[in-house]
Amino acid sequence: MFQFEELQQQFDKHFSHRHFPAAPASLYDPCEYFLGLGGKRIRPVLCLMGNELFDDILPDAFHVASAVELFHNFTLIHDDIMDKAPLRRGKPTVHALHGEPTALLSGDVMLVVAYEELNKVGSSHTRDIISIFNRTAKEVCEGQQLDMDFEQVNTLSLDQYLHMISLKTSVLLAASLRMGAILGGAGEGNQELLYEFGRKLGIAFQIQDDYLDAFGDPEKFGKQVGGDIIANKKTFLMIHALEAASESRRHELRQLMAENPADKVEKVLAIFRECGIEEWARSLKDQYLKEAFEHLEDIAVWSERKEPLKRLAQYLVQRDK
Amino acid sequence: MFQFEELQQQFDKHFSHRHFPAAPASLYDPCEYFLGLGGKRIRPVLCLMGNELFDDILPDAFHVASAVELFHNFTLIHDDIMDKAPLRRGKPTVHALHGEPTALLSGDVMLVVAYEELNKVGSSHTRDIISIFNRTAKEVCEGQQLDMDFEQVNTLSLDQYLHMISLKTSVLLAASLRMGAILGGAGEGNQELLYEFGRKLGIAFQIQDDYLDAFGDPEKFGKQVGGDIIANKKTFLMIHALEAASESRRHELRQLMAENPADKVEKVLAIFRECGIEEWARSLKDQYLKEAFEHLEDIAVWSERKEPLKRLAQYLVQRDK
Repeated sequence: MFQFEELQQQFDKHFSHRHFPAAPASLYDPCEYFLGLGGKRIRPVLCLMGNELFDDILPDAFHVASAVELFHNFTLIHDDIMDKAPLRRGKPTVHALHGEPTALLSGDVMLVVAYEELNKVGSSHTRDIISIFNRTAKEVCEGQQLDMDFEQVNTLSLDQYLHMISLKTSVLLAASLRMGAILGGAGEGNQELLYEFGRKLGIAFQIQDDYLDAFGDPEKFGKQVGGDIIANKKTFLMIHALEAASESRRHELRQLMAENPADKVEKVLAIFRECGIEEWARSLKDQYLKEAFEHLEDIAVWSERKEPLKRLAQYLVQRDK
Repeated sequence: MFQFEELQQQFDKHFSHRHFPAAPASLYDPCEYFLGLGGKRIRPVLCLMGNELFDDILPDAFHVASAVELFHNFTLIHDDIMDKAPLRRGKPTVHALHGEPTALLSGDVMLVVAYEELNKVGSSHTRDIISIFNRTAKEVCEGQQLDMDFEQVNTLSLDQYLHMISLKTSVLLAASLRMGAILGGAGEGNQELLYEFGRKLGIAFQIQDDYLDAFGDPEKFGKQVGGDIIANKKTFLMIHALEAASESRRHELRQLMAENPADKVEKVLAIFRECGIEEWARSLKDQYLKEAFEHLEDIAVWSERKEPLKRLAQYLVQRDK
């Protein structure tokens, strides 16, 4: 059994080659540039870990893991266009460097290359894996659309946000685990338990993400702390604050969002704290993590095989960057 | 053996159902809207004809044909964003109606649904078919990128334009035929001949397209005649005129393109005519059609099986709309 960091290295070794033809460079160099920005490679490693939970890692798992990572990067390139984001991992985004048309096409061709990786899978389960991949890809698009739709609405319930986040973030983590598990020979029941583990872990992960954006250490976080507040994003924290705050504080929050004063971040954070939001977020996160671990517990394999996943889950929801 | 129109009807019957889930409507209704704009369905029918050239049409051919049509529509939605086109088939484009972010996502999810169709193919040749589909998808993206790159250059050779058009337009026609032929049990040699038939037919088709844009009958053409001239697009006609015209006429052409006077279209058309461009275009088109027919001739099946393809090819390069 390998720990996350070891599998991360194994995946990087497999993945760090040129994925695109040389010409036309105007299309393919931006693709290589974006993949070169790196990232934690969580999703592909989850695929490998899903495989290893049940059996030794097969070569096919690296193809599926690569497809997942290419798909994830395709969504990031297109999300950056939609969000008009200038930076990704501290570097200029593809559209900032090459314009929106080229960024759009680079994303498109990266999705095609993800499917090329899937077409290398030789397993007898290939059709099932592609079917999960496709369903998940659609769900991620749905999540992104709902995220944009929600920017236009005034009030958002926690349930609506959970549904959107589940689609936009969690299902890809969950599906990565499940596709690996299928390659490892897992039965339907174990697959579903692992999927639910991943889905709930993904929600806990997003709570941590929203939390760090507001309360993270600027030295470690690497992004502008308070970015979500400045952009008026409806996060776990903001949705809860709008539900839990007193009438006058709610009014104040709405005014801060409408007027964008210079001291907006510190004023919003003060209201967040007044609502006891740090504790609320921690308890919500712990609840999802607890449920995730219960699903993992129920999977019918030796307990020691689950250790790397447990360790990774703890890291993902406690990370400070 | 069926003629094009009959297969068009069969395909329409198979294809005219809802392809996307109901929710979120903000993502999927634009997809359905765009598919509902119709079109001649040339590519999917070529897939059916490629199959029938060698054997009775298999149910799998309809899945591949649907994937091809969904892919083609995905490229149109994204091309319209890149070209900032307000209209498609006389109706508002997706981004004109719903904004660029939703149009981008609608295209993305349509590509995923194309792969869902491919995942329904049960043939033992599935991997080969998906491999051709993927290679072609990449080439179409390359063609679109080259088309955008060429907007920035001053002079373009006929060879460069042919290469770009081959990628952007011809390879999908050629691949549609070939994927159908694979399902029909064609051998490698026959597949390649049919592919080359499709590729050269595609070039003849594009020559006709460029010709109609300049010299078509406005009543029949359905688009603004002279649109390419107004947009300074480098077409077969413009590239040849810049090569064949006298020094002074070439200078005049460049000036018309730079200054965009009100009588630009008629002045450019006058220079085109002076260069004998109508005859040149007809002869170039005939040459590609002739070569296409020679490839078709060489395919080792009974001559009568080739009749529907011959008839379709004649129609495509002689159409007046």
